[in-house]
Amino acid sequence: MTALKAQTAVSPTDEAETLAKAAERHLIQPWPSAGEIGDEARGLIGSGDGIYVTDAEGNRLIDGPAGMWCVNVGHRRRELADALHEQAMALSYNSPWYTMNEPSALLAERIAGHAPGDLNHVFFTTGGSSAVESALRFMQFYNNVRGRPQKKTILSRDGAYHGSTYLSASLNGSSRGRDWMDIADDLVVKLSCPDPFRRPLDMSIEEFSDMLVEEFADAVKRIGAENIGAFVGEPVMASGGVIVPPPNYLPRIAAICRENDILYISDEVVTAFGRMGDVFASKDVFGIEPDIITFAKGVTSGYFPLGGMVVSDRLFAELRQSNHADAMYAHGLTYSSHPIGCAVALKNLDILEGGLLEHAREVGVYFMEQLKTLEELDLVGEVRGTGLMACIECVADRESKNPLTLDTEVGRRIDQHCQELGLLLRPLIHMCVMSPPLIITKEQIDEMVAILREGISRTMEDLRKEGLWKGFA
Amino acid sequence: MTALKAQTAVSPTDEAETLAKAAERHLIQPWPSAGEIGDEARGLIGSGDGIYVTDAEGNRLIDGPAGMWCVNVGHRRRELADALHEQAMALSYNSPWYTMNEPSALLAERIAGHAPGDLNHVFFTTGGSSAVESALRFMQFYNNVRGRPQKKTILSRDGAYHGSTYLSASLNGSSRGRDWMDIADDLVVKLSCPDPFRRPLDMSIEEFSDMLVEEFADAVKRIGAENIGAFVGEPVMASGGVIVPPPNYLPRIAAICRENDILYISDEVVTAFGRMGDVFASKDVFGIEPDIITFAKGVTSGYFPLGGMVVSDRLFAELRQSNHADAMYAHGLTYSSHPIGCAVALKNLDILEGGLLEHAREVGVYFMEQLKTLEELDLVGEVRGTGLMACIECVADRESKNPLTLDTEVGRRIDQHCQELGLLLRPLIHMCVMSPPLIITKEQIDEMVAILREGISRTMEDLRKEGLWKGFA
Repeated sequence: MTALKAQTAVSPTDEAETLAKAAERHLIQPWPSAGEIGDEARGLIGSGDGIYVTDAEGNRLIDGPAGMWCVNVGHRRRELADALHEQAMALSYNSPWYTMNEPSALLAERIAGHAPGDLNHVFFTTGGSSAVESALRFMQFYNNVRGRPQKKTILSRDGAYHGSTYLSASLNGSSRGRDWMDIADDLVVKLSCPDPFRRPLDMSIEEFSDMLVEEFADAVKRIGAENIGAFVGEPVMASGGVIVPPPNYLPRIAAICRENDILYISDEVVTAFGRMGDVFASKDVFGIEPDIITFAKGVTSGYFPLGGMVVSDRLFAELRQSNHADAMYAHGLTYSSHPIGCAVALKNLDILEGGLLEHAREVGVYFMEQLKTLEELDLVGEVRGTGLMACIECVADRESKNPLTLDTEVGRRIDQHCQELGLLLRPLIHMCVMSPPLIITKEQIDEMVAILREGISRTMEDLRKEGLWKGFA
Repeated sequence: MTALKAQTAVSPTDEAETLAKAAERHLIQPWPSAGEIGDEARGLIGSGDGIYVTDAEGNRLIDGPAGMWCVNVGHRRRELADALHEQAMALSYNSPWYTMNEPSALLAERIAGHAPGDLNHVFFTTGGSSAVESALRFMQFYNNVRGRPQKKTILSRDGAYHGSTYLSASLNGSSRGRDWMDIADDLVVKLSCPDPFRRPLDMSIEEFSDMLVEEFADAVKRIGAENIGAFVGEPVMASGGVIVPPPNYLPRIAAICRENDILYISDEVVTAFGRMGDVFASKDVFGIEPDIITFAKGVTSGYFPLGGMVVSDRLFAELRQSNHADAMYAHGLTYSSHPIGCAVALKNLDILEGGLLEHAREVGVYFMEQLKTLEELDLVGEVRGTGLMACIECVADRESKNPLTLDTEVGRRIDQHCQELGLLLRPLIHMCVMSPPLIITKEQIDEMVAILREGISRTMEDLRKEGLWKGFA
């Protein structure tokens, strides 16, 4: 970095080329293909400010996905940069095995204050995957100590995304991510994706919800409640395409879990910390009181790798009353309770509590209203979402909802046009998902939607020209 | 944090009590026991500076374990605090799925420059567990793409520690950490711990080494090389008690791996970034060229959760030449290639390269020489280590090497005495491990060893008085 900055005669583009070469030779980024692994570079982002990032050519782009559903308070927040610096100069690290620090105790207390019901105990990790690992390994420990070591099967759903470690990835519901990877399929049972848009054409939402609940109850009967440790579910499936489940579906699933002593693990890695207008969405938005909530991303707005789980009093009280006081929950990370991460999260929470949650609730409604107008476009099958999370799903045909073929790469095409127009998206095959920083204004939403309208229109034109899509002539 | 600091009339001890109560009610730290979970607090550390940390009562303590083998450049380094701030104000986050940042490309290039042989490609994670997960999931992917999906068994060893996720923890060799936890024991085969101190009494070091190598070769024959994906090993087992293997053992194991097309994954989470005087220890200290090296901790001196793996050209070239160009290594974390973490690591590497590696090599020799003098004490069975990593192992009897009983808690007792005298240790049952910040001076080493001598002497006195240990009268 220093070396490059010293070369003042070098143009930004030369710098970008040098970096691209370094990346091609040395940097591996997530999800490379076998054909490109160890020989690819991705587009350089140089800086960020508010809802914007700037690319290698100096173009300013709206950060549509807020990084990766995480930059909730926006880029370049001096309060957060100051918190990083101050805590690093006070105490940059202590071992959570033997000692404690101030920011983690204060943050645990504040998070517990926001969590529903008796979810009072917070364990910290370094992100979403390790949060989910912690919850699943806790479920296994809990049932071992309670003398029911067979009660371990995990229920998940198609379309789910829960992480990228061997166990957490085993819960993921996308076949694309599993084809060449190993998973622990003996530990997990998958149920249907609660996607109202993709429900059978002749089925009402209510019937669809009944069907899903029935499937869940049947699975419990078939597998046996005595063999099921937990259900793990995102309130809104994020990477699956912002799937908002049918009304009342989550409370009904939660009731079945409670009746059958199955832990309900609500994976709020994406939905927590303001994305839906509240610190946690489980109870405030969906009316459920899970046994464990996992969180990450928004807790630090992406400025620091921090995640964790909040666990109910009830589960810990049961363990304390067991006959195995010495049984160790032998789990923990070097960076559990990291003082700098917790200090940043405290400052981030100050910002959220200081008016940003209200703002997010208000602009969230406007965001969805304006995005919905894009359903006028023939390529758009559905615009869906809630709060500041949305997805545009494209279809080959709006009546039949027939999907476009994979090689149409419509998500990537829309993203490309939108980037040229000043908006970064997150393409997912035939979908584009969006989750802008919560600080976005109504004017900026208007700008974003206008770019989307133009980007989708240009994509429709391209597809028609290339004969890949008919649309309405 | 702010709230507490405003109460200027409150004494540090009242503050600490308030924090302890918050922690008891709300904070879960690593490795709680069922009897204490959700109802315990650990000793508060308020600040750090150089090799010292300060506890709640204002006592300054030498940070013996450097946090958790990680604070290599020491506490309160303004350069690192500045790097955190500067990068947060430039670009705090970008999604590594779709974009790239400058610090990660530059850091990958510099790390590759230090890695042995053709280990040229760096993938970043958030710590050691996720680094090991990445390497293991890569091995599975690699063998799936190469058409040998049965070649997946992982060889590990008793005494090993590789992480705290379901898969990485399955490699751990301590029974204490497994009793109540589930592991993937169908995926892992454990071999003997290469601990020279605990070798059979009548066996020479050379015979012991031969025995270990023979056991390894036999395991390969028994399981079949076609079924073994990788051997994972720490060059020096850290949490197992700083086990330095017999000379030439590692190169001989590496040769067997090479002959049998078994990936050698060298887990350098503890040993890399200066702990043994070099950026990586595999080749420079132990003469081996692994296929993959995993790292974490020292890469940022604990200021930021960052880890990763370095992979050889050879493996990636094989994948690029396979018939499955579209096969996805469907793996990656939100915080892979984090710009702030990589910026801190670059600055940390500047410090290491700017003379600290040489310093660590020099004082490392002095450190071991001085510590070795503690073998005069009757309770001490062995002082061992290399570089700035050491372990004091206590025994009931020096001739027979008989261990002390668990309830003697001798590690905890020594730590307690040493804390009173100004030194924080890391007790491990009947051992104390040490890995001070690399900036430690010879004078500070003298101070540390003097405290240890006094702390161990006091412990011997206590044990004698309580009739728990006879020693030499």
